[in-house]
Amino acid sequence: MSEPKILRKKTGHFLEDFVPGQLFRHKLGKTVTEGLFAAFTEFSMTTNPLSKNARYARAYGFSGLVCPPGLAMLVAFSQTVEDVSENARANLEYVDMRFGAPVYVGDTIEVETKVLGVRTSASRPNLGIVHVQSTARKNIGERDEAIALTWQRKVQVYKDDDKAEAHAGEIAPDAIECSLWLPPYEQGRDYKRLAHLSNPDTYFEDFEPGTRIEHSRGRTMTSEHIALTAMLDNTSQVHCNQYMIDRDPAQYVGGQLIIFGGIPFVLCLGLSCPDVADNALGDLVYKTGRHTAPLFAGDTVFAATEILGKRDLAGRADLGVVETRLFGHKFVKKDGGFEKVGIFELDRDVVVKRRSHYA
Amino acid sequence: MSEPKILRKKTGHFLEDFVPGQLFRHKLGKTVTEGLFAAFTEFSMTTNPLSKNARYARAYGFSGLVCPPGLAMLVAFSQTVEDVSENARANLEYVDMRFGAPVYVGDTIEVETKVLGVRTSASRPNLGIVHVQSTARKNIGERDEAIALTWQRKVQVYKDDDKAEAHAGEIAPDAIECSLWLPPYEQGRDYKRLAHLSNPDTYFEDFEPGTRIEHSRGRTMTSEHIALTAMLDNTSQVHCNQYMIDRDPAQYVGGQLIIFGGIPFVLCLGLSCPDVADNALGDLVYKTGRHTAPLFAGDTVFAATEILGKRDLAGRADLGVVETRLFGHKFVKKDGGFEKVGIFELDRDVVVKRRSHYA
Amino acid sequence: MSEPKILRKKTGHFLEDFVPGQLFRHKLGKTVTEGLFAAFTEFSMTTNPLSKNARYARAYGFSGLVCPPGLAMLVAFSQTVEDVSENARANLEYVDMRFGAPVYVGDTIEVETKVLGVRTSASRPNLGIVHVQSTARKNIGERDEAIALTWQRKVQVYKDDDKAEAHAGEIAPDAIECSLWLPPYEQGRDYKRLAHLSNPDTYFEDFEPGTRIEHSRGRTMTSEHIALTAMLDNTSQVHCNQYMIDRDPAQYVGGQLIIFGGIPFVLCLGLSCPDVADNALGDLVYKTGRHTAPLFAGDTVFAATEILGKRDLAGRADLGVVETRLFGHKFVKKDGGFEKVGIFELDRDVVVKRRSHYA
Repeated sequence: MSEPKILRKKTGHFLEDFVPGQLFRHKLGKTVTEGLFAAFTEFSMTTNPLSKNARYARAYGFSGLVCPPGLAMLVAFSQTVEDVSENARANLEYVDMRFGAPVYVGDTIEVETKVLGVRTSASRPNLGIVHVQSTARKNIGERDEAIALTWQRKVQVYKDDDKAEAHAGEIAPDAIECSLWLPPYEQGRDYKRLAHLSNPDTYFEDFEPGTRIEHSRGRTMTSEHIALTAMLDNTSQVHCNQYMIDRDPAQYVGGQLIIFGGIPFVLCLGLSCPDVADNALGDLVYKTGRHTAPLFAGDTVFAATEILGKRDLAGRADLGVVETRLFGHKFVKKDGGFEKVGIFELDRDVVVKRRSHYA
Repeated sequence: MSEPKILRKKTGHFLEDFVPGQLFRHKLGKTVTEGLFAAFTEFSMTTNPLSKNARYARAYGFSGLVCPPGLAMLVAFSQTVEDVSENARANLEYVDMRFGAPVYVGDTIEVETKVLGVRTSASRPNLGIVHVQSTARKNIGERDEAIALTWQRKVQVYKDDDKAEAHAGEIAPDAIECSLWLPPYEQGRDYKRLAHLSNPDTYFEDFEPGTRIEHSRGRTMTSEHIALTAMLDNTSQVHCNQYMIDRDPAQYVGGQLIIFGGIPFVLCLGLSCPDVADNALGDLVYKTGRHTAPLFAGDTVFAATEILGKRDLAGRADLGVVETRLFGHKFVKKDGGFEKVGIFELDRDVVVKRRSHYA
Repeated sequence: MSEPKILRKKTGHFLEDFVPGQLFRHKLGKTVTEGLFAAFTEFSMTTNPLSKNARYARAYGFSGLVCPPGLAMLVAFSQTVEDVSENARANLEYVDMRFGAPVYVGDTIEVETKVLGVRTSASRPNLGIVHVQSTARKNIGERDEAIALTWQRKVQVYKDDDKAEAHAGEIAPDAIECSLWLPPYEQGRDYKRLAHLSNPDTYFEDFEPGTRIEHSRGRTMTSEHIALTAMLDNTSQVHCNQYMIDRDPAQYVGGQLIIFGGIPFVLCLGLSCPDVADNALGDLVYKTGRHTAPLFAGDTVFAATEILGKRDLAGRADLGVVETRLFGHKFVKKDGGFEKVGIFELDRDVVVKRRSHYA
């Protein structure tokens, strides 16, 4: 038999492939199994009983255990990686991430992304910035079809051919109808009977703008991140292909696998949960967010939250919005000691129960 | 903007916080998902088909796959950690752990704990011993509400303020109605048709008091223990915060993360299963148990079982009780060789099928 | 109390225990939970939406998410390990592995194995080759009982007593009725509406015999393999007992734990999926397969597929069969560089959709 002809397929898109106005309907989709739900809910160390205790979730008017917002985000976000960021150098910013319908076990999430902007880097001609808007729908074509979340992000993407011309331009984002579904407050429900299941000091009344809560717990990451990333269908090789790095270590930050940014994202949400979101009914919006340093296996992740402000929620006397900034950090050995390094920031509005109505 | 005021919240209770008679209704609760069920049932290497084969479990009269007793214990026990032992130095003893209703996928477990006793240490004034009684209920307020298990334990807990006075005292335990639910033996069920699915030499008739079975398999633990512990909502930092240890290694045994005791507990149960509990219908009681050495990532766990005695089970000619002592051990490098180190002991009464009725 | 009598039970069978014609009805059985489904489907990096997106799977006529063929194989194969290969030196060959009914979450798989042949090694009198035929049934005694898969394999097995005589002989395999269930093609189903969810260039028309596709992604294995193997009830100690190896490293290849062959098997299937099986409705047959080198934690697995041929599928104008050979490989450090080492080969016929009918 003659030698076979060798085929190597390119995966993902490069800077010159993106055109403002272009729409990607991402492949695959993903059904949330109880396996996925458990793996990430538990990994993230969330402590909101809505994601842990089905009787509690049902008593509040949800259909069952509720995916934490970070899990909904991961399931949706990861579907955009192959088309948008498989050939990215860095994810620069999350913008206006808004949540809609709650995501339950059994829901199927599918995502599409519109290209809003493309521009080349003035200083580095081999890459540029792509600005996209993604929307995740659940259960398309079924009775409970709904938008689960929508967000924009800006990504630094390589060119495939350094001499290629990018389709520079910028269009306005679509106005996506996506606002947080909240179960109605009903007099007949005996919420107070369940109040011992969440923290007693994280009601709306308890938050004081101008304070910063240093969350007490830390969590050391291990090589488990490789499996977690695969579990999300994230296809980027910098998270899981050690040989690629060993062959050319100088090319990669730290000469080791980088942990997928979605992992510290959900872990910081979880570490902050007992102090910030134990009595939340949902996350309203992440106005902006970014990763400020890479995370590696062996690092221990910590989090802190600044309370920026508080406001009423229209039509809901039982709830209020707490405006926060979530920070993630780690400690790096330096000069015989440890240096604190920020890894993540997220401007986050949380919808929180009022003690007056629930406890 | 001015500097935010820094808040650090204390978590868990200290010796001086405990008062005999005091009741903790623990936070969170936990619904057993198929993800949690699979992770721990498989991890523990249990071989009883009741936890592996749904057709077998249903044929015996259970509603579906049955959580191994070790998993029911972990889900319940971990809920008590934040209130009882987040600031503990060591878990000294498990006492009178009795099982009740079987735990199935979908069940929600909630736990409360009563403080039975408090005493200060004569030799170490900065700590003392707390004696508690915990009870785990499933599906509270629902049709199949039941007690799943109850137990006592004694824990060595630090004071927050070394000069604080502890509320010394001891009260009697409550009489908790909790006895093992067993499916009735029914002539119409063709148990023998399923007998090939379990080991042929672990029926009641096979056990001989005065023997010790060295279970053949070992299992090496990895850093996976961090994720497993998070999966149980166990909040103790000595299991998952490597930075805390690196900052002050002399303060922590071995200068490394200690594996949560619940992990070797269920692993020893599982390693013993093919020889002891393959034909068990349930675990009746763990009269007493303790950890005798810490376990670390890299250690390989082995188990052995001594058969202490056998007795009939009132009203059940088809079953008998095997009285055992389960031992866990590992091998530690020493003087160019290996030294055997005991890590765990558990006095355990198992309800076992008689060959006369089932095979 | 007097010293207990020590019992050590032998597990598994040795060469002299096998007799041609002998039937093993394996213990345990296994129900596919959502936890097991998620762990392995995600681990393997499969990209066929039938295993990811329940709405897509139902639209094609399946009852729900479909276990990838590699997972069905692992669940079935592992049940045969204790009886057939716990005391094996190596698994020599997979032969004529054919798939039948699809396996869904909730299905219970039970397996039996017939011994077809036994022969001693001429050169190594302490071992020989056992040839077996195994068949996996799902949901025995229930409405949807069916054969899920059947296969033969040849295993090199140790003798327990080097001087024992083996029961040499060979009988013909049984003719097992097992052919791939495929959902009917129905005009009313709007397959094209879902076409964006799978790759656009992996339809039957796209494959060109005589080509070799080098799949772009690699995946580094970690010590996670120990937990994955336990999750499959595979009882072989060379995958999970590091102490056994440390005590006598010269006895074991590489002085370290070997990764269970089923792990690279499913991982190679998954790595090839985006280029080969994204539009498959099922795997028809693995005519032959073998492991050509061991895999260890730290190795990165890659895969390639040669397209050997194509043929029509009788009675199905909408489908065709693609005949492939799947290769797995890794890179090993050598002389300051890396050497490519083949680890796995599988002759694999895949049933693939035609673009003419589906896109």
